[in-house]
Amino acid sequence: MAVKLYGIAMSTCTTRVMTCLHEKGVDFEIVPINLSAGEHKQPSFISKNPFGQIPALEDGDLTLFESRAITKYLATKHKDKGTDLLRLDNLKEAALVNVWLEVEAQQFNPPISALVYQRMFSPLFGGTPDEKVIEANAEKLGKVLDVYEERLSKSKYLAGDFYSLADLHHLSYTYYLMKNPEANLINSRPHVKAWWEDISSRPAFRKAAEGMTA
Amino acid sequence: MAVKLYGIAMSTCTTRVMTCLHEKGVDFEIVPINLSAGEHKQPSFISKNPFGQIPALEDGDLTLFESRAITKYLATKHKDKGTDLLRLDNLKEAALVNVWLEVEAQQFNPPISALVYQRMFSPLFGGTPDEKVIEANAEKLGKVLDVYEERLSKSKYLAGDFYSLADLHHLSYTYYLMKNPEANLINSRPHVKAWWEDISSRPAFRKAAEGMTA
Ligand SMILES: N[C@@H](CCC(=O)N[C@@H](CS)C(=O)NCC(=O)O)C(=O)O
Ligand SMILES: N[C@@H](CCC(=O)N[C@@H](CS)C(=O)NCC(=O)O)C(=O)O
Repeated sequence: MAVKLYGIAMSTCTTRVMTCLHEKGVDFEIVPINLSAGEHKQPSFISKNPFGQIPALEDGDLTLFESRAITKYLATKHKDKGTDLLRLDNLKEAALVNVWLEVEAQQFNPPISALVYQRMFSPLFGGTPDEKVIEANAEKLGKVLDVYEERLSKSKYLAGDFYSLADLHHLSYTYYLMKNPEANLINSRPHVKAWWEDISSRPAFRKAAEGMTA
Repeated sequence: MAVKLYGIAMSTCTTRVMTCLHEKGVDFEIVPINLSAGEHKQPSFISKNPFGQIPALEDGDLTLFESRAITKYLATKHKDKGTDLLRLDNLKEAALVNVWLEVEAQQFNPPISALVYQRMFSPLFGGTPDEKVIEANAEKLGKVLDVYEERLSKSKYLAGDFYSLADLHHLSYTYYLMKNPEANLINSRPHVKAWWEDISSRPAFRKAAEGMTA
């Protein structure tokens, strides 16, 4: 039975999981959740994710939520299939993958998600981008990317000279960022730009990005 | 050679790692970093954590940062020593530990760290608590804890009927929260309160908390 992914392809957190599924060559079925109709706050979805957010994943009798926990599960279960995303056979490499997974979650995600929200999602809901919020978060993201620039001048990918889940987790938000003036934060840093061009051209992400039409 | 933990016992992120070290019975040495003197922004520390934040860990020639990546490394390396914090031998249990690790990082940490910052750290730096920020984050945290209350009415700990790293990651911020009026957010929810009393009385945390004197 194919795994079921509850979500929508336009959502960054759903695409994060889809990209991982494609890297692993795992068959799945998307079960669309209608956010405008509030389907994610209905009991049938709340029973899958009590926080009422997409995505959620069903694999047999196991139900999971939180996109980053879902990708870790998939990368562990299908360790020997497709790209080795967690390096579980090497304690040190696995530790560095975890460091950069945390950097994405703790340092990179807060400012980039705030930026993308202002630029792309707030207008969808009838709001206008708050330039003060944009400016503050562009500054924070720039500082984070200064560290990335230095790091990527020494290794090809974040955790080392191998593509990992840590790189993958950056794809969906950066993809939307690149459609906005803040693309400059990436383009002005040569190693970050080269890294972005590399990771965003992987077939697994190209496939997932087809639905990213926000 | 004992591992070296760079940080200070008063810092929540450092205590998170210390609690894990105690649960695992791993010998370590604390190397204090003087934040008021800006030691965390000096080259010698930046070479350990390019983001200039405590904690960092050295284990032989491996240097790690981000508290949650450090604990995962320790819990993996010392899998068979002390408390089994990640349940790596059981794919489903490990997946649920990861879900609740992500819930702590993505849902619980943002509001509780903002609250504790306003109540305890901002005054240390000569500021006054911003009641608007406190109110907004208390409301967010309350909603997260509603989900915890429901979850903990069904299982003794977050990931199941076993103590895991997901529970451990909540300890240090909640410890400071409990010294403030917002302790009420925990005390008013019976299952959350019982869980807190249980996990905070574990000897590994009692030891780590001795230095939490903010
Ligand atoms: N930390 C969660 C975030 C999930 C999330 O924010 N999902 C959004 C769509 S990208 C959502 O469901 N928003 C609707 C809501 O929060 O009500 C994850 O990574 O899965
Ligand atoms: N996500 C990081 C956060 C680390 C952090 O915020 N550390 C604080 C002390 S608890 C710090 O070093 N603050 C000083 C600064 O950021 O300049 C982790 O979990 O290790």
